Amino acid sequence: MGESPVTANSSLLIIGSMAFDHLELPSGNFFDVVGGSATYAAMAASVFAPVRIVAVVGEDFSGEVLHDMRNRGIDTNGVERVPGKTFRWAGRYSKDLTSRETLDTQLNVFAEFRPRLPEAWRQTPLLLLGNIHPTLQTDVLDQLRSPKFVVADTMNFWIKGEPEALAAMLRRIDLLIINDEEARLLSGIHNIRKAARDIMARGPKRLVIKRGEHGALLFDEHGVFAAHGFPLEDEVDPTGAGDSFAGGFIGYLATMLEITPLALRRAMVHGTATASFCVEGVGTTKMATLTKAQVGARVAAIRELYEFGAHSM
Amino acid sequence: MGESPVTANSSLLIIGSMAFDHLELPSGNFFDVVGGSATYAAMAASVFAPVRIVAVVGEDFSGEVLHDMRNRGIDTNGVERVPGKTFRWAGRYSKDLTSRETLDTQLNVFAEFRPRLPEAWRQTPLLLLGNIHPTLQTDVLDQLRSPKFVVADTMNFWIKGEPEALAAMLRRIDLLIINDEEARLLSGIHNIRKAARDIMARGPKRLVIKRGEHGALLFDEHGVFAAHGFPLEDEVDPTGAGDSFAGGFIGYLATMLEITPLALRRAMVHGTATASFCVEGVGTTKMATLTKAQVGARVAAIRELYEFGAHSM
Repeated sequence: MGESPVTANSSLLIIGSMAFDHLELPSGNFFDVVGGSATYAAMAASVFAPVRIVAVVGEDFSGEVLHDMRNRGIDTNGVERVPGKTFRWAGRYSKDLTSRETLDTQLNVFAEFRPRLPEAWRQTPLLLLGNIHPTLQTDVLDQLRSPKFVVADTMNFWIKGEPEALAAMLRRIDLLIINDEEARLLSGIHNIRKAARDIMARGPKRLVIKRGEHGALLFDEHGVFAAHGFPLEDEVDPTGAGDSFAGGFIGYLATMLEITPLALRRAMVHGTATASFCVEGVGTTKMATLTKAQVGARVAAIRELYEFGAHSM
Repeated sequence: MGESPVTANSSLLIIGSMAFDHLELPSGNFFDVVGGSATYAAMAASVFAPVRIVAVVGEDFSGEVLHDMRNRGIDTNGVERVPGKTFRWAGRYSKDLTSRETLDTQLNVFAEFRPRLPEAWRQTPLLLLGNIHPTLQTDVLDQLRSPKFVVADTMNFWIKGEPEALAAMLRRIDLLIINDEEARLLSGIHNIRKAARDIMARGPKRLVIKRGEHGALLFDEHGVFAAHGFPLEDEVDPTGAGDSFAGGFIGYLATMLEITPLALRRAMVHGTATASFCVEGVGTTKMATLTKAQVGARVAAIRELYEFGAHSM
């Protein structure tokens, strides 16, 4: 943890779930869709930099998917394949895609997941702790030798159920990514600015609050930055959009020489652009083939959203 | 209607309601609060340019408020004072201010409102048609001699109840301002970009979709522009924020030589900045004394929300 310069194209390590999802979408029902927070985040981050992924899958997980991930520069040596079934999640989305209900969760091999970092990976400078038990997140931090920048994600489930473990984790990270509901739940404060201040006092010096289609806010010592969501013509499946944001965000940071306020702001826009593609296809369809050129074009489109001749005002 | 150049500091005409509101807010209950769409919009617009207001009040309306409005450069010669009581609205806000219910509506003198423009005002180049019956909005347009730019507001009530009158009005305006729910209701389309395209095919070549605290989107021939909402520390009362946006928007346009895509984008940011002040006080408290310097400072703060070194990316 700290703000020392990070070498350009630093390797980055992503920990989280790999899963099969059952998705009931307005466009149809989709079975055995490859998903999971680490899968989305790693695919998104690999647009920008080499990625190391730590996760667990069962015997039913497709070797072809892991092969395709390796072809994108994702090192899958940290993916444990163990006897049993891969984590499964089933969800149903509302017609307008703005809400969803969980139909079923089968933790399967994920229930016993104890992330173990390969020895050679313990010096990885950039870390994305996906949404797993905060004690496991802390445990991963213990396995790393002075990471340069640690980003973590969490969710309602841990905020409500594991407040102490979560508090311990928050004290050890550089940046937390959560959504607005989670920020309100964690702080007990409705006003977003005040909620952000409260959360930053608990450890992370920087905070990203995701606001779905509206984009995301970054709070840091430099102030507030707003990355507007890109208004899409075709919204198909929001599953994994938050993880793709986190992956694009940290992937872009890996290309920066230093983690400065400016680098974080650029990473916000790149994360937003990356996540916008995720929503355009079912599951990881779009993320599996996303290119830097595509993201660059969307970053330009997002910049255009803001263009109002600021310099002549 | 058209896009001919508009003289800088063109006078602008605002039509809508003047009212007394009863507000049940988390911070307390407030009685006989001066309100109404035309009141908020005129106060907001007067930050930038001279304003002509057309509305109706009853005998109970305070002459002092009209006096204060005149002191802000608002010409109140179009405010009819008639026997009876002023329009009254009562509403209760949720604890987090994100929703409200109407407790009571008493149209009173507003029920018989038939806007009549003073002869000298029929050449006003800029027009804001506040949220009144679409037939009355069209009637006002009939009284104007070739206005240069016409902006209109409407609401669910007319979209559902007066689709034909609304369609006739839409064909005669340059820009419509509505919120996202109204855009979806009017078009029957959930996706905001597609909804915008559908609405623009009905008449207005430009459309502003307000999204509450998230800001507003402008759609025009140049593309999409997003004005981000300013994240406030103190949200007190959202009443009139949409009207203040519209007033700040058209008020700023009145200072432009031409209504260009760039002018519209700047007006979006100035409207957003103006509306953010409205929310910081009960009723028109903040709008009644708002200065150009205050709005300018907030425009700078909103610009900072977007600063991500775009020019070196």
